[in-house]
Amino acid sequence: MTTPTFSEDLQRVGDVPVTDAATAAASVNDDATLLVSGFGSVGDPKAVPLEIAKAAEAGERDPELTVVSGGSVGDPIDTALIQADAVARRYPYQARSAARTAVDDRSVAFADRGIAGLSDEVRFGRLVDPDIAVVEAVAVGHDWLVPSTSLGQTPGYVAAADELVVEVNAAQPVALGQFHDVYLTDAPPNRDPIPLSAPGDRIGDPFVRFDSEKLRAVVQTNEPDDPYKFREPTAADRAIADNVVQFLRTEADRDPVVADAPTLQFGVGSLGNALMGALADTELLNGDGPPLRYFGEVIQDGLLDILDTGRLAAASATSLALSADGQERLFAEPERYADRIVLRPSAVSNAPALIDRTGVVAINTAVAVDIYGHVNSTHLNATHVLNGVGGSVDFLRNAHCSIVATPATAADGDVSTVVPMVSHVDHTEHDIDVVVTEHGVADLRGCSPVERAERILRIADPAFRPDLRRYLDHARTSGGHVPHDLDRAFDWQR
Amino acid sequence: MTTPTFSEDLQRVGDVPVTDAATAAASVNDDATLLVSGFGSVGDPKAVPLEIAKAAEAGERDPELTVVSGGSVGDPIDTALIQADAVARRYPYQARSAARTAVDDRSVAFADRGIAGLSDEVRFGRLVDPDIAVVEAVAVGHDWLVPSTSLGQTPGYVAAADELVVEVNAAQPVALGQFHDVYLTDAPPNRDPIPLSAPGDRIGDPFVRFDSEKLRAVVQTNEPDDPYKFREPTAADRAIADNVVQFLRTEADRDPVVADAPTLQFGVGSLGNALMGALADTELLNGDGPPLRYFGEVIQDGLLDILDTGRLAAASATSLALSADGQERLFAEPERYADRIVLRPSAVSNAPALIDRTGVVAINTAVAVDIYGHVNSTHLNATHVLNGVGGSVDFLRNAHCSIVATPATAADGDVSTVVPMVSHVDHTEHDIDVVVTEHGVADLRGCSPVERAERILRIADPAFRPDLRRYLDHARTSGGHVPHDLDRAFDWQR
Repeated sequence: MTTPTFSEDLQRVGDVPVTDAATAAASVNDDATLLVSGFGSVGDPKAVPLEIAKAAEAGERDPELTVVSGGSVGDPIDTALIQADAVARRYPYQARSAARTAVDDRSVAFADRGIAGLSDEVRFGRLVDPDIAVVEAVAVGHDWLVPSTSLGQTPGYVAAADELVVEVNAAQPVALGQFHDVYLTDAPPNRDPIPLSAPGDRIGDPFVRFDSEKLRAVVQTNEPDDPYKFREPTAADRAIADNVVQFLRTEADRDPVVADAPTLQFGVGSLGNALMGALADTELLNGDGPPLRYFGEVIQDGLLDILDTGRLAAASATSLALSADGQERLFAEPERYADRIVLRPSAVSNAPALIDRTGVVAINTAVAVDIYGHVNSTHLNATHVLNGVGGSVDFLRNAHCSIVATPATAADGDVSTVVPMVSHVDHTEHDIDVVVTEHGVADLRGCSPVERAERILRIADPAFRPDLRRYLDHARTSGGHVPHDLDRAFDWQR
Repeated sequence: MTTPTFSEDLQRVGDVPVTDAATAAASVNDDATLLVSGFGSVGDPKAVPLEIAKAAEAGERDPELTVVSGGSVGDPIDTALIQADAVARRYPYQARSAARTAVDDRSVAFADRGIAGLSDEVRFGRLVDPDIAVVEAVAVGHDWLVPSTSLGQTPGYVAAADELVVEVNAAQPVALGQFHDVYLTDAPPNRDPIPLSAPGDRIGDPFVRFDSEKLRAVVQTNEPDDPYKFREPTAADRAIADNVVQFLRTEADRDPVVADAPTLQFGVGSLGNALMGALADTELLNGDGPPLRYFGEVIQDGLLDILDTGRLAAASATSLALSADGQERLFAEPERYADRIVLRPSAVSNAPALIDRTGVVAINTAVAVDIYGHVNSTHLNATHVLNGVGGSVDFLRNAHCSIVATPATAADGDVSTVVPMVSHVDHTEHDIDVVVTEHGVADLRGCSPVERAERILRIADPAFRPDLRRYLDHARTSGGHVPHDLDRAFDWQR
C-alpha cells in the first residue's frame, strides 16, 4: 500500500465491504474471547458492543464473553455490556462504576494486570486464547487500518485474534493518523531490542497491518469518545505540584540525567493532569535548560498546555486521553502537535527497557502509602477494587526516579492516605524512591525502613501524625527491621 | 593492553606496587562509603575488611562505614566487620547471621534492594556517594583487573568509586578469567540497548578496566571463598522438582517460546539447587527437543550436573555460587565448562530487558504465599528480616513465566507457607503466574483473585487446608473483589 496522507480527502473505507453493526455483532460468538481497542477511555469500539448488549438485553442471545481491552474503555463496553450480563471475564483494567460493581460482587471475573506485558500475554497464550478483535479506526483498507484516539494494545491484539471487525468512526478525524507509530515487537526467545533512542523518535508505520483473511466486517459509526472529565485542581493538587517541581529542580542540580534531558511520566487522572498544568505555568529548569521530554502512557490536557509553551520537545504515549475540551483543541489543529506527539503501542510506550533507557522520572498517584513506603493503588480496605494497577506498575518499577504523589487525606480530610500498613500492596518498598504530599517531599532513597517512616510521617496530614507516631514508637519497642504490630496494623482500615 | 590468556603462567600482579592488607585498610576512611565485590557469597574481598575489623576491635579506629556489596558476601564483611561495630549502613543484601541480627536490632541501617538496578543506583548517585571500591581479582595490571568467582556489580562499582583497592587472591585460579564477559552499560538518557541476543553470547571483555589514577593499593591474599552449603534435597524438594518439570513439559507442548528454546532461571539456595539437580536426572523435553538454556543470577552445583549431561547449551549468570565441592570440580577442569558458562555484570545478568527478550521461565522460592498470590520473600511476621529480595524481584517481574516454588510447610510442618494474607509483600499478585508446592501446581494465569485462592488452596498442606477454606469462605460472605477479613487476616502470623 502507499502511505495514507491523513488529509480529510483520504477515503475512510477502502476496497472492503461495509455492514451494519448488528450484523457485525453476530460474528462475535456468545462464548468468544473478545479483544477490543481502547486506552485511557478513548478509541474503544462503540457500535458493536452496544449491539451485543442490546441483543442480550432483549433476550435474543446470552453472551458469556471474555473481554480484554487495551486499558480503560467507555460505556458501550464497561457499562452497557456489563449491565446486560454479557461479560463473564474482564481484563486488564476498568474505570466505570458498572464494571467496578460487577468486579466487586464477583459476577465478573476480573484479573488486574499491568500494561507493558499485556500484548505479550495475549499474543503468546499466557492469558487467553483470543477469538476476535473489534477495534476502532479512522480508516481501513483490505489489510490495514489506522487507529483512532488510542493505539493501546491494538497492534498485538489484531495480530493475535483469529478474526477482525473494524469500526470506522467518522467522528474521529483522519488526521489522527499522523500521531501513530505502530511497531510490533517480535517474539521471544532471542527477541530484538526495541530500536527507539529518544521519546520523539519514530520507528514504525502510521497503520496497523493485518492478514486480510481475518477481516469479518467493517462498520461505519459517528460517535465521539466519552473521555475523562478532569476536576479543577484543588489547593492540595497545586501544593503537590509545587513540591514536585521543587524536587525536580533540586534533582536537576545534582543529577546530570535529569539536567540533560528531563524526561517525565505522569499517571492518568486529575492529579496527573494538574501536575502537567503546573509545569506549563513554570519553567522547570530555570534559564537555558534543555526542553522537557514526556515518555508516558497518556497525553492529557495539561500536556497540550506545556506543548503550547514550547518547553516540551516531545511527548510519547499510547492514548490521547484528553477531556472533551482537549479533544476539541487537538482536533481543531492536529498539525500544531503532530510533530511532537507520538502514539505508540502500549508494549512500546510502557516498555521496561525504554523507561530505563530514556531515564524517566515517573510520578504516579496512590490510594494509600504506608509508613515504610509500600503503596496501594487499587483496593479499598483490602477488598474493594477501584480501577486497576494499569501502567503505574511499569513506570514506578523501571524509572530512573519513582515518585508517588498523593494528597495526605481522602474523603474530605476524614481519612489519612498515610497508614501504618497498606492492606493491598501494588508497589513494594523496593520500588518507591520518593513520596510527595501537599505537606512536603519524603526522599526515601537509601533509607532503612525506620528512616523511611520518620520521613513519611513528616509529610502526613498534621491531624494524623500523632497517631502514626504512636504506632511507630510502639511497634519499634518490640524490635525488628520493619517494626510492626500485627494486632494494630490494620486498625485504621477496620 | 593485550588480552590475558588466563593460563597459570599469567603474571597475577602486573606493573603495580603491592602493599600489605593493614596499609590498604588505612586507605578506607572511617566514614567511607565502601563498595565491595562479591555475589552469591563468593568473590568478596577478604583481607582488607578483616584488617579494618581488627583495628576496630582493637580500638585503634572507630569506623562508621556504609558498605555496599554486589549481593551476598562472606564472613569478613558480614560477620567480622559487623561484629566490630564498623558498619553503620548496609546495602543491598545480607545472608549471614551477624548481619541479620544487626539489621534486625536496627544497629545497622539496611535497605533491601533488587539487583538489576543497583549498579545504576550507585553510579548515578541515587543510593550513595561512593568513595572507595575494594574488589577481589585473580590478576591486576595498572588499569585492568580480572575478577574472581563473581562479577556482580564490580564493573559499575569500580567505575563509580573515587579510589580502588584490589585484593589478588592466589586461592582463586587465573582460569576464572575465561568466564567473565564484562560489559558496562552507558548512562541514560538515550542509553543504548544491551546488544545481547542469546544467553551464551559474549559482548564484552574478560577484564574490568579502570582509570589508573584510582588505584590506591594492591594486596595479595590466599584465602578460599566460604561459599554456600547446600543441604541434601528433602522429599518435598524432590516432589516440587517433579511438579516443576511436569509443568514445564506441559508448557512446552502448548507454548512455542518454551518448546523452541527452554530458558530457565532458578533462585539461589538449596531448593533451586535441587531443581537444577532434578533437571540433570531427567530429560525436560522428551526426545529430540532443543537443549536448555540458563539465564539467571548464579551458577550452582546442580547446573554443573546439567552441563555434564550435555543438555544445557549455555549458562549465563553473575556468580559461581558453588559449594566447596562444586568449586573444586570447576577449578579442576575450568576448560570443561568455559565455553558454556558466561559470567556477566549483574546489570546484564538480571536486566529486565534481557529476561524479557530471552523468554525466561523464572523459578524462585518464597517465605510465604497468600491465597491471592502475593509473595513474601524477605520477612518473618512482617518485621524480622531474612536475607533480602535479591534478584527474585528482577526475574519474577520480567519473566515469560514466573513460578514461585516452596514447600507447603516450614518449621518441620508446624507452619503453613500458604497463608490468608502475607505480612510483607515483595512480589505482588500482578507478577506471579504459577505457584508450585510438593502437593501440586497452581496455575494462576488469567484467574480472578477468588479463582486463584481456590487453586492455591489445593496445593496447601492438607493439614492447613480446612483453616484456609474457613478463612476464604468466611471472607467471601462479605463481598469484594479480594475477599479479606482484616480482623483475622494475620491470625496465623500473630
